[in-house]
Amino acid sequence: MEEHRPPALQENELREQTQDRLPKVKEAIDRVGVSGLKVALKLRGKSGDESHFLADVDLFIDLETDRKGIHMSRLVESINEIICKDCHDPKESFEQLGIGILTELQKRHNYRRGEINIATTLLLRRFTPVTAKPTDEPYDVAVRVSVDGNVFRKRMTVRAIGSTLCPHSLETTKGKAHVQRAEIELSIETGITENIVFEELIEICEKSFSSPTYTVLKTMDEAAVVEEMFRNPKFVEDVARDCFKQARNLNFRGRLHIRAVSLESIHKHNAVSEIERVFE
Amino acid sequence: MEEHRPPALQENELREQTQDRLPKVKEAIDRVGVSGLKVALKLRGKSGDESHFLADVDLFIDLETDRKGIHMSRLVESINEIICKDCHDPKESFEQLGIGILTELQKRHNYRRGEINIATTLLLRRFTPVTAKPTDEPYDVAVRVSVDGNVFRKRMTVRAIGSTLCPHSLETTKGKAHVQRAEIELSIETGITENIVFEELIEICEKSFSSPTYTVLKTMDEAAVVEEMFRNPKFVEDVARDCFKQARNLNFRGRLHIRAVSLESIHKHNAVSEIERVFE
Amino acid sequence: MEEHRPPALQENELREQTQDRLPKVKEAIDRVGVSGLKVALKLRGKSGDESHFLADVDLFIDLETDRKGIHMSRLVESINEIICKDCHDPKESFEQLGIGILTELQKRHNYRRGEINIATTLLLRRFTPVTAKPTDEPYDVAVRVSVDGNVFRKRMTVRAIGSTLCPHSLETTKGKAHVQRAEIELSIETGITENIVFEELIEICEKSFSSPTYTVLKTMDEAAVVEEMFRNPKFVEDVARDCFKQARNLNFRGRLHIRAVSLESIHKHNAVSEIERVFE
Amino acid sequence: MEEHRPPALQENELREQTQDRLPKVKEAIDRVGVSGLKVALKLRGKSGDESHFLADVDLFIDLETDRKGIHMSRLVESINEIICKDCHDPKESFEQLGIGILTELQKRHNYRRGEINIATTLLLRRFTPVTAKPTDEPYDVAVRVSVDGNVFRKRMTVRAIGSTLCPHSLETTKGKAHVQRAEIELSIETGITENIVFEELIEICEKSFSSPTYTVLKTMDEAAVVEEMFRNPKFVEDVARDCFKQARNLNFRGRLHIRAVSLESIHKHNAVSEIERVFE
Repeated sequence: MEEHRPPALQENELREQTQDRLPKVKEAIDRVGVSGLKVALKLRGKSGDESHFLADVDLFIDLETDRKGIHMSRLVESINEIICKDCHDPKESFEQLGIGILTELQKRHNYRRGEINIATTLLLRRFTPVTAKPTDEPYDVAVRVSVDGNVFRKRMTVRAIGSTLCPHSLETTKGKAHVQRAEIELSIETGITENIVFEELIEICEKSFSSPTYTVLKTMDEAAVVEEMFRNPKFVEDVARDCFKQARNLNFRGRLHIRAVSLESIHKHNAVSEIERVFE
Repeated sequence: MEEHRPPALQENELREQTQDRLPKVKEAIDRVGVSGLKVALKLRGKSGDESHFLADVDLFIDLETDRKGIHMSRLVESINEIICKDCHDPKESFEQLGIGILTELQKRHNYRRGEINIATTLLLRRFTPVTAKPTDEPYDVAVRVSVDGNVFRKRMTVRAIGSTLCPHSLETTKGKAHVQRAEIELSIETGITENIVFEELIEICEKSFSSPTYTVLKTMDEAAVVEEMFRNPKFVEDVARDCFKQARNLNFRGRLHIRAVSLESIHKHNAVSEIERVFE
Repeated sequence: MEEHRPPALQENELREQTQDRLPKVKEAIDRVGVSGLKVALKLRGKSGDESHFLADVDLFIDLETDRKGIHMSRLVESINEIICKDCHDPKESFEQLGIGILTELQKRHNYRRGEINIATTLLLRRFTPVTAKPTDEPYDVAVRVSVDGNVFRKRMTVRAIGSTLCPHSLETTKGKAHVQRAEIELSIETGITENIVFEELIEICEKSFSSPTYTVLKTMDEAAVVEEMFRNPKFVEDVARDCFKQARNLNFRGRLHIRAVSLESIHKHNAVSEIERVFE
Repeated sequence: MEEHRPPALQENELREQTQDRLPKVKEAIDRVGVSGLKVALKLRGKSGDESHFLADVDLFIDLETDRKGIHMSRLVESINEIICKDCHDPKESFEQLGIGILTELQKRHNYRRGEINIATTLLLRRFTPVTAKPTDEPYDVAVRVSVDGNVFRKRMTVRAIGSTLCPHSLETTKGKAHVQRAEIELSIETGITENIVFEELIEICEKSFSSPTYTVLKTMDEAAVVEEMFRNPKFVEDVARDCFKQARNLNFRGRLHIRAVSLESIHKHNAVSEIERVFE
């Protein structure tokens, strides 16, 4: 792979650099790289329309036993090469961007295992339940693409906000109940070719709450949301289980992680419920 | 005040230091110092019992036009001198600690205006409404003591967590309503001798919510809290106004700031209401 | 202004709503509204090219003494109306977006004082000092547009990251010195028509550090950055003053606030320096 | 274990509760409980002196397939029972507190796997390198005690702040170099009886940096710290490896995780290096 080091050549870095020396402690490093890089990304949907994102990117590679350091600038250069606005056709997905960057990096830096995390916020169009007003709802999402040799994997994570209405309270207080904002983080780690899309994961989360939430709600919409909450009382345990059941139906092979958090309105602390499973 | 610089003497720093030179830009600085210092504090109550706190401390002074820098280490030394466990009797209040530190600093560093912020978490004993279980509830608090010449002032800030139940929703949905966690930040800036205590400010906040919240709640307690919410439906506007009315009754002269935030369970964003007033 | 309430009409909200009742505590509220709204924004530059942003938006209005609550959904509707992708020509600046939203809101909701905060991240093209590699550097920015009656004002805030190299240390240790990451927050509040642009404020900040920082640096670039640091040793006081001097040259009328923070590499806490001035 | 449920009895909760019903989705839950509880803790050292802490506590248990929910209040009650100031002798360590709480919970709630996380800040006495001034340095620490059946394990995590000085920069720029604040998170998961103490882990971290940092530094101390940085240039890779080598010498069986982060002063992003190993 060493033929592919033109940047070093161009910049007169041919001489042995500090990074290439022997380290004092000869121990392999699992993950070394950059974190917290802010980058502008562009994706092109199947219909040809483009979407723009500001993303937080981490990029790590492994480092062998007998080399002091990696060349960090090549990591950032690989990201810039792939995302640069003027020199490529936009990819269709964050996964493809991740694969592109890890592959580009293989031309610039020797490594065996690499990993890129791309975190951003999606805005998805929803319509309010009664007046059908359009509203763009925000969801934090992240994709991690990892490669070991030439085997790629991905982990897709979404975080959605909704509500829980306490079923115990609804029984005890006879029709009254405490409600609160709640969150689900749903994460699936699987092979790179599995067909898992953010929109579907977000929909699964939203259906798992007592009710989804909306950025705009007129009086009649608000009433409908409240009625829906009272029809679907759920413990944070129910939220995690309902999310699990739907996610399981995606029929992927890999690891599933669900974390539901209820920002209890009767407590100052949160209630949490987690399910982790591996499907082979 | 320059006679009081023994630390410099003891440490062979008599020669002119970089800080004492003329700056290139001859402009006074309003506030220069350290922020994010973690310190262990001890207070002694009137009954003689001691309380321990981990606090976040900021300490700033002003800097005159023709001096390049302050001697930052003297700020930290002044804090250490006053809080050190083994060399003093504990103060009765955070304000007294603040006054002590600003006064100690006057012996070590020339300044006209100084300001110390001490932020920590109080745990106050509460009892649940029905089963009367004891429960220690957390409240973030902060005191800022400032001095200009020899006039001291203080600003006391508390943050309390409670709940709001939407009155509009309760009307529209006929007995059902959305509830959510809410917070109030209440802040009073006044003369140093005004009798304002954290416990009273926290109580004012807690009475302003639809209901206070508790760390432990047995079934009957939870039912009582839910009943209280439904008896006291409040917009975030009502919360701020009810807090204002009580705070006004404290009869201080100075500045009052109230910020109520409702973590809406029907939205992903928050609702906020603020009242600011100056009483002369 | 009440003629302009078509949304209420369309949605059968003509009857008196809870919000329109008399409050128990008859006290005006300074600021009530929504915070933490995530919205997608589009701006069109003078050359016609479009830029896309994900922004955090807060929108507040005042509330008179004898009205219980505001109609929060109208705030969000006003934002959506102005930013919606399909129904308008993009504005040229965040200020114009803010003015547009506050003006739209005046058609939908009675208020006297209003305020919108739009916070986002800009990526600006830079070139590394020696190899002239292009690199997109991130800067957090925010604009607050406020209106009182029909007088608009704006506050523009930028946050830039750079470095400080301690001049005292450089003297004492004879050519060696501690360096650290540093930040400047520069904020100017002024009339709406004053010509203040983010790019210029960011440039002022970057010139105030010991050196600016870059996302990519090849070996020779890194050497140049380090040399520049050692040529420009600066206390956090110097950073604030150098920033002040340049900002003053913008010749605006209004309020200037500078906060420089040095993430000290010899301490666990930060060093801070602040300058505030009003220019009439 | 069901004989031990007196709290339910005392509070008239004998009737079947909502939590005890069958869930719709019959799936076990790995972890359900409370997070973000603020509690005041007291430990008694071997010399008999007491230390006080404000801690953030999470407490989780598993939930079987055919039960709708756990009884969350019993989790908080178990914590309160063990930490309450007036009714027990202080434990010697956070681990013992964790064991105590998980054991108390077994009397109140049926579960198989449980886990408690206790996070707080330690202040440790240090002395500055030349003037030997005492200074209390802060370190974030956390212990997780888990139990499966009756087998207890623990994970101890410390986070320490220090500095890195870039060796590559030092070579290229001939005696000059960029320095920055850096952090290490060192975590060891092992059997409950292994003799791992926070103070030792913190010391390992501090020896792994280019230099440790101090809250107070007089001129001569600062010079000594800077000299030490320049004597110990380290990539973030070196920091992780040096930390690894020392941690390995503790000779425990279990899992080791090291994450070193350098807040680069020449970049806006961070450099990160991680080592994970399992020792059987």
